[in-house]
Amino acid sequence: MSAHPKPVIALDALGGDHAPSEIVAGALMAVEAGHRVVLYGPAGLDTGGLPLVETTDVIDMAEKPAEAVRAKPNSSLVAAVRAVADGNADAVVSAGNTGAMLAAGLLHLRRLPGVARPAIAVPIPSRLRTTVLIDAGANADSRPEHMVQFGVMGSIFSKGILGVENPEVRLLSIGEEPEKGDQTTIEAHKLLAAEPAINFVGNAEGRDLLRGTADVIVADGFTGNMALKLLEGTIKELLDALREEITATTTGKIGGLLIRPAAKRLRHKLDPETHGGAYLVGLKGLAVIAHGSSSRRAIANAIALASRGVENRVVELLAEGLPERPGRTGSPENVRDTGV
Amino acid sequence: MSAHPKPVIALDALGGDHAPSEIVAGALMAVEAGHRVVLYGPAGLDTGGLPLVETTDVIDMAEKPAEAVRAKPNSSLVAAVRAVADGNADAVVSAGNTGAMLAAGLLHLRRLPGVARPAIAVPIPSRLRTTVLIDAGANADSRPEHMVQFGVMGSIFSKGILGVENPEVRLLSIGEEPEKGDQTTIEAHKLLAAEPAINFVGNAEGRDLLRGTADVIVADGFTGNMALKLLEGTIKELLDALREEITATTTGKIGGLLIRPAAKRLRHKLDPETHGGAYLVGLKGLAVIAHGSSSRRAIANAIALASRGVENRVVELLAEGLPERPGRTGSPENVRDTGV
Repeated sequence: MSAHPKPVIALDALGGDHAPSEIVAGALMAVEAGHRVVLYGPAGLDTGGLPLVETTDVIDMAEKPAEAVRAKPNSSLVAAVRAVADGNADAVVSAGNTGAMLAAGLLHLRRLPGVARPAIAVPIPSRLRTTVLIDAGANADSRPEHMVQFGVMGSIFSKGILGVENPEVRLLSIGEEPEKGDQTTIEAHKLLAAEPAINFVGNAEGRDLLRGTADVIVADGFTGNMALKLLEGTIKELLDALREEITATTTGKIGGLLIRPAAKRLRHKLDPETHGGAYLVGLKGLAVIAHGSSSRRAIANAIALASRGVENRVVELLAEGLPERPGRTGSPENVRDTGV
Repeated sequence: MSAHPKPVIALDALGGDHAPSEIVAGALMAVEAGHRVVLYGPAGLDTGGLPLVETTDVIDMAEKPAEAVRAKPNSSLVAAVRAVADGNADAVVSAGNTGAMLAAGLLHLRRLPGVARPAIAVPIPSRLRTTVLIDAGANADSRPEHMVQFGVMGSIFSKGILGVENPEVRLLSIGEEPEKGDQTTIEAHKLLAAEPAINFVGNAEGRDLLRGTADVIVADGFTGNMALKLLEGTIKELLDALREEITATTTGKIGGLLIRPAAKRLRHKLDPETHGGAYLVGLKGLAVIAHGSSSRRAIANAIALASRGVENRVVELLAEGLPERPGRTGSPENVRDTGV
């Protein structure tokens, strides 16, 4: 795409359920496809020839984010994040502890001016289009004024990374009417409707997440995270249940073989690994959070997502699109409280 | 089952997208199966021989609940609810305006002593067991102390109607740990864990709704309603997408024919119409809310659900299980504010 040199992606080699083997394999796939990756991990790690920055520590999934980030400055995750802050990399990717990524981002990358709360933006593929769900869980408690910023950031993300012109923004609620929802949602609806920087078209309901009826769906972090897990869990549960029913009879088994290509196409379309990761928006640097269960393909796609973000200047677009406003409150200490 | 005469179910003939034809057809199916039904609807309605109480008005789906219920005391919905209050019927079923059912229930049936907020309990069928989601949308804003009552009522419902011994109760959140979630959920977790009347086993995540990992899942009404719509919408969207992929090729089409029985079995298992309706718990009378899109089969099942509730003395069990406590706040006027 770009005539410029490819961005350098700092990759946490120790993040995720299948680290380090799938992480390194994903990095090699990405490099094969033309990306540039530097791994952050322990001395002696077999990187298949990729550059390695040695780190001495690891943050595991169960650790308290803010404490772990402060206590382990030379962990693979924190060092990879710091590489972006120090200008040694253009973006960071990790499949590790989400809360720790957020805490390390707040501490080392810092918030963009005007951003009250960074948020997690997850691209959800559907048949019709990719819908960006924001916030998918960076914040356990969100206020309406935060949610308006989520809408603005989600819109910039949709435009800048997914190439959508004038993205349609909706608010996740329990009915189409503006007065439906809990108090936070009703208030957020009013603020979103009054925000000139976005194309707000009204409320969405839960069913809209997979229906592709919006380019951006805004939610408070609790609702967004719950919705994301419900969506992913239901797809998996349903496909498993269908397989179980199909393989219960011989006729079904034969039918199952014949529909396998169709089922595969569908799974590929809806696969969370297609985009490879969620995007932590609102920081002065680019951070992609890959799913803890990421395969090498997911990691490779997460690296591509991060590269695209750098090439499309998403952080710069966010900085321009979010003029300084009073009342920001995000700090690394808040992360411990969110419990994400 | 019972040696007593069958309960009499008051059925709103004008509620739902397919009223009155599917409603009457569902009533006839239920009567065929041994239930007793009295229809509430306009003079001249062809009831196929079932008794009709004539009403003169109708509440439509878009009306403001509390206003409509007060303005139209002789609507089919309100008259059917009043029949229970007046002792002319043992339970009421409607596929109409959910908010109006709640408002009419609060006005005419009244809350059980000690109940702060009535709630909607929805039985969700999964492969493993039926999970009762409560509150699925009676309240747009819930406080932690309300959510504990939802847990108690859900537990009584699971035991009394679904026959589960010592039902396992979980709280819908965004992680297993007690400290995960928004402030309301974290506080509700503490109260649920301290409640001796239930078997609380911890948090559930969105994916658990269809996984059958709990007998009862407690949520605030906003989150519960969102989750229910997301679940139903995702199942539908996914099966539609699969059908589309399968019918795109000839091989797929043949395979599709062969797996049809398996797909049907699965759909039957997961079909919301299997239980026919949600249960409005916390009132001094039994009310079942059927889905707006209910077919005759759903209506027949909703009538059976209501009958079973009467025969198993669910209202009495709820009255016994919920000792009077201070601080109740539910009134018909609140319904307008919830926006459900």
